[in-house]
Amino acid sequence: MIGPSPATPRPEEAVIAGFDAATAPTATDVHGSLAVHLDKDWQVGGKQNGGYLLALLGRCAVAAVGEQYPYPVAASAHYLSAPEQGPAEVDVTVLRTGRGTAQARVVLRAGGRACVEGVVTCGAIEGDVWWDDVPVPELPSEQDCPRLPVDSPGLHVPLLGVLAERLDPATLGWVDGKPSGRGELRGWVRFDDGREPDPLALLAMVDCLPPATFDLGVYGWVPTLELTCYVRAVPAPGPLVVRQRARHIAAGRLDEECDVWDSTGRLVASGHQLAGIRVPG
Amino acid sequence: MIGPSPATPRPEEAVIAGFDAATAPTATDVHGSLAVHLDKDWQVGGKQNGGYLLALLGRCAVAAVGEQYPYPVAASAHYLSAPEQGPAEVDVTVLRTGRGTAQARVVLRAGGRACVEGVVTCGAIEGDVWWDDVPVPELPSEQDCPRLPVDSPGLHVPLLGVLAERLDPATLGWVDGKPSGRGELRGWVRFDDGREPDPLALLAMVDCLPPATFDLGVYGWVPTLELTCYVRAVPAPGPLVVRQRARHIAAGRLDEECDVWDSTGRLVASGHQLAGIRVPG
Repeated sequence: MIGPSPATPRPEEAVIAGFDAATAPTATDVHGSLAVHLDKDWQVGGKQNGGYLLALLGRCAVAAVGEQYPYPVAASAHYLSAPEQGPAEVDVTVLRTGRGTAQARVVLRAGGRACVEGVVTCGAIEGDVWWDDVPVPELPSEQDCPRLPVDSPGLHVPLLGVLAERLDPATLGWVDGKPSGRGELRGWVRFDDGREPDPLALLAMVDCLPPATFDLGVYGWVPTLELTCYVRAVPAPGPLVVRQRARHIAAGRLDEECDVWDSTGRLVASGHQLAGIRVPG
Repeated sequence: MIGPSPATPRPEEAVIAGFDAATAPTATDVHGSLAVHLDKDWQVGGKQNGGYLLALLGRCAVAAVGEQYPYPVAASAHYLSAPEQGPAEVDVTVLRTGRGTAQARVVLRAGGRACVEGVVTCGAIEGDVWWDDVPVPELPSEQDCPRLPVDSPGLHVPLLGVLAERLDPATLGWVDGKPSGRGELRGWVRFDDGREPDPLALLAMVDCLPPATFDLGVYGWVPTLELTCYVRAVPAPGPLVVRQRARHIAAGRLDEECDVWDSTGRLVASGHQLAGIRVPG
């Protein structure tokens, strides 16, 4: 075929790329559904990342409730079925617009199936820290933390191309088959393309690290059943510190918490998820 | 008026009371909405307790998805407006029934307004504990922990009549204006009427203690914006151990976690909530 190369973006498309393009609705149909495109870059082992899907839904919610409610404050989602990469649609229903917050229901459908349903409370996020019992972990400098590769034996993680994840070597023993047994991963995370973090991006960051269960010697996939994220501050520019911890594994399910700090050491988001897991007998 | 006293229950009504009656749908209307009655006993300072509302919604979800999915596994809800005590309705939409889990959307309406919307993932809960990084706190014996009263100066808490909450004296300094400053409350909780705990009740238990902020000297109401509960095991009979902790207060909002153990010391539920708060200037 002769024609313009799809690799050459038109000028108006070149402005937004990466995370912003991957979470942008591209059209609205006659029923009000938003068309979205699930980006193959935001995959882990052939599945769309749960945090990415939450961020995409959060963006649709924030756009629907109006600019008086500029950020996702609390977003929770249940994962019904794993969507394929490619076209999908989002239905947004504004549930309430109040004085300080607004709520929207968001439903992601792909391939004729409901895939993710959640609710997002939106609002402003401003004001000082009054109490903090979630101290930022001490980490080696970013350059002293090895970056996780896109490809490792048996696993292809495109997500690690769009996010530069540099983990504390103390939590990387599992790479050599020597997990610490503490159930915790922590490190520096930033967008590979230089985009700075914002509240929407934080919805993705609370589910961006490998499973904390890798540090327990359990290397299987842990499909997210439910993910909740609280955004606590607008992050400063620069790399984020992300810590993921396995709290509890029982009844074939993992309870995992994730906290995110900005480059000034301020807690900016906290996530909590329940995921499926298979553990050694 | 002459007639049967409403205080005399018919025999078939006398079997179920307390929590079970307070969370039971009483009828289904022609549109499929469930009629419920928000119980005045499950109030705190004139407002219906958020955990109680989550349990009521969880019960409606479990009933709708069918008996292959007997328990709430993960329930999350956003609180839009505070319902009045009295009649209300619940709309349940089954979103998916899968091999191991099913999900339902639940919406509580009262006084013509949507009050709470959430999603509940339901399923079985069985299997051993494989990892536990949430150790049960050591507490004085139940009889050595004072029971919180229904009435204290300026505050009427009917909830403390239906739940016997006995708090560790080490976390009760706030009663005498001497909070410990650690932001943690913990104690024994059981139904006052002898009902044993079950997974549905755990949805209420993750929001049953006074705000952990009392232990920080902040005594205002903390209205729940979002509450998520993961049920981790079917609890054994006997009193529960409940610990509520203020993780972070900023931007006028409180991030609070709550863990619940059964009488054998097994973690049975974990909750996480974001609530509004006013802190001293």
